[in-house]
Amino acid sequence: MELKLAFIGFGNVARGFARILKDHQLQLATKYGLRWRTTGIATANHGCIVSTDGIDLLDAVACVERGENLSELPRSLSVSDPLSAVDSCNADILFETTPLNIADGEPATTHIRKALARGIHVITANKGPIAFAYSELKSLAETRGLSFRFEGTVMDGAPVFNLFEYCLPGVRVLGFSGVLNSTTNHLLSAAARGVAFADALAEAQRLGIAEADPRNDLEGHDAAAKATILANVLMDADLVPEDVTLEPIDERAAQAARAAAGNGDRVRPIIEIARRGTGVVASFGPRRLGPLDPLYAVDDFSMGLVYDTDLAGRVAVQLHDPHVDQVAYAILTDLLEISATMPRP
Amino acid sequence: MELKLAFIGFGNVARGFARILKDHQLQLATKYGLRWRTTGIATANHGCIVSTDGIDLLDAVACVERGENLSELPRSLSVSDPLSAVDSCNADILFETTPLNIADGEPATTHIRKALARGIHVITANKGPIAFAYSELKSLAETRGLSFRFEGTVMDGAPVFNLFEYCLPGVRVLGFSGVLNSTTNHLLSAAARGVAFADALAEAQRLGIAEADPRNDLEGHDAAAKATILANVLMDADLVPEDVTLEPIDERAAQAARAAAGNGDRVRPIIEIARRGTGVVASFGPRRLGPLDPLYAVDDFSMGLVYDTDLAGRVAVQLHDPHVDQVAYAILTDLLEISATMPRP
Repeated sequence: MELKLAFIGFGNVARGFARILKDHQLQLATKYGLRWRTTGIATANHGCIVSTDGIDLLDAVACVERGENLSELPRSLSVSDPLSAVDSCNADILFETTPLNIADGEPATTHIRKALARGIHVITANKGPIAFAYSELKSLAETRGLSFRFEGTVMDGAPVFNLFEYCLPGVRVLGFSGVLNSTTNHLLSAAARGVAFADALAEAQRLGIAEADPRNDLEGHDAAAKATILANVLMDADLVPEDVTLEPIDERAAQAARAAAGNGDRVRPIIEIARRGTGVVASFGPRRLGPLDPLYAVDDFSMGLVYDTDLAGRVAVQLHDPHVDQVAYAILTDLLEISATMPRP
Repeated sequence: MELKLAFIGFGNVARGFARILKDHQLQLATKYGLRWRTTGIATANHGCIVSTDGIDLLDAVACVERGENLSELPRSLSVSDPLSAVDSCNADILFETTPLNIADGEPATTHIRKALARGIHVITANKGPIAFAYSELKSLAETRGLSFRFEGTVMDGAPVFNLFEYCLPGVRVLGFSGVLNSTTNHLLSAAARGVAFADALAEAQRLGIAEADPRNDLEGHDAAAKATILANVLMDADLVPEDVTLEPIDERAAQAARAAAGNGDRVRPIIEIARRGTGVVASFGPRRLGPLDPLYAVDDFSMGLVYDTDLAGRVAVQLHDPHVDQVAYAILTDLLEISATMPRP
């Protein structure tokens, strides 16, 4: 069976995923019976197209990377916007990878809601819809018998939700601690090496690691979205990002990081989630760790998450030295999960 | 549907598992539809019994812990030995948890072979059969359409094989490094704290952490079995434990551990597995690690494994401060996997 795939958002992550799909096309077909055709791509700055015959993914990647409009591609039809693309792409699976909107998760949530309403399985790497609308979207997907997967939203391609679903059956998560925002972890790691905070931030912005407006990372909004997702999906909480107590990663935290390094410790940007009474509380801020802490060695762009559980004890997962392709890999794992549950000829 | 369960070996791990089954009986029935009856228990020193009506697991635990013979239990029939129990228990699933025989994996391999030949699914926490006879037993199970699972053989209840199978689809493992023998890791951790090697070993023996004959741990035979399992199961190698290059954890390694600790480093007992040419090579021995190494914080009885992969990057899994119940939990995850694939009424 051939799966019809559509993309909303065609940035670094989606294009990295497209390259994995093409590079491993034969292996994925042989080992997983995965055959696919691309029937829609919608972007903010490079047009929106649909195609019955199928869009050549590598041509689309090259087109966008040359800065051209996707309407240049053969055998494709331009449509006005992403929602029109969802309406007319006739896809089995939609990949939503538009940028995070930390204020309300839109328009990604609307894209996903529309796709599910049309009977399309959804995979997203966008934290917004999960942080703001998880329970609504989950229940919409369940009602329609559709898959709704988002492994890439927390810790790139390292397993977080799949780990819980497939490797920790029967456990109750008591809490989490994690280093999940790699921009601030990089800045505090640079501070530990003696780099001035303003210099490290400027350099990170120059390299595209930190955004021009770095507040989502520094003030903890990105971390709050991730903490909300973990709490709601894996601890049955009902938080919104505003519920997460935030302390900023700033000049003062950087000074603390430098001082800690002088004593062999590290200051890292830590998410903590715990059960309290009948509820769940979450926080984010700079925390000082000794070398025997599981998150001490999670340096620079690495990420790590510690699950405190009843039956399985304290299980830690880390991803060391990741690059963008690791989010793309997370999308592939979601695709293989969905593909495995679909009827075979 | 009610699953008929049988045990060969009823030591700490099996009894811990029995307690989890009883403590979580309602939750397992409600959430996973898991209903079960125990139809056989075979031990080396407390007799071997089978029962059509079902053996009360907690009564059996109490009986063994009082040092009595299982034949004291009501509605049970004594049989002569474990193989007779396999023949007459009429079980759906057998739990093999006899102690490791590092020389050849027997008699556990024979127990498992017999159970599979009789159409019984097998779950084991015993490294021997996997290190010495994985490919034979796997192929026997596949031929008969049976499950053969062994999550507890490496790193207790932390996911190793399930992680690969369910969370890292499509990846090729390039190599492993790991701290997987907690007895030697404890001894080197004690050395780092300034405890003399002989004293730490004697204390560990007194507490039952190290065996009276500690050579399996110190000379690396336990680690070699685990390295062989990882290489053969997850890297398609064809090693035997003798192929693993071993350096002992001894007085000299302990001195190195103490010296390293003085400089902020740690010496840990490290398994390394790598692809070389068309084959796979494996080694075990004391290695010095800096604080930013993913295995540095894997202290004392903790364990950790780093997967080097093509698509998913460098993924680390750790289990901090485990206790015996974590192996029991691994057996539960295997049971839930098998239960999920069995036909429902």
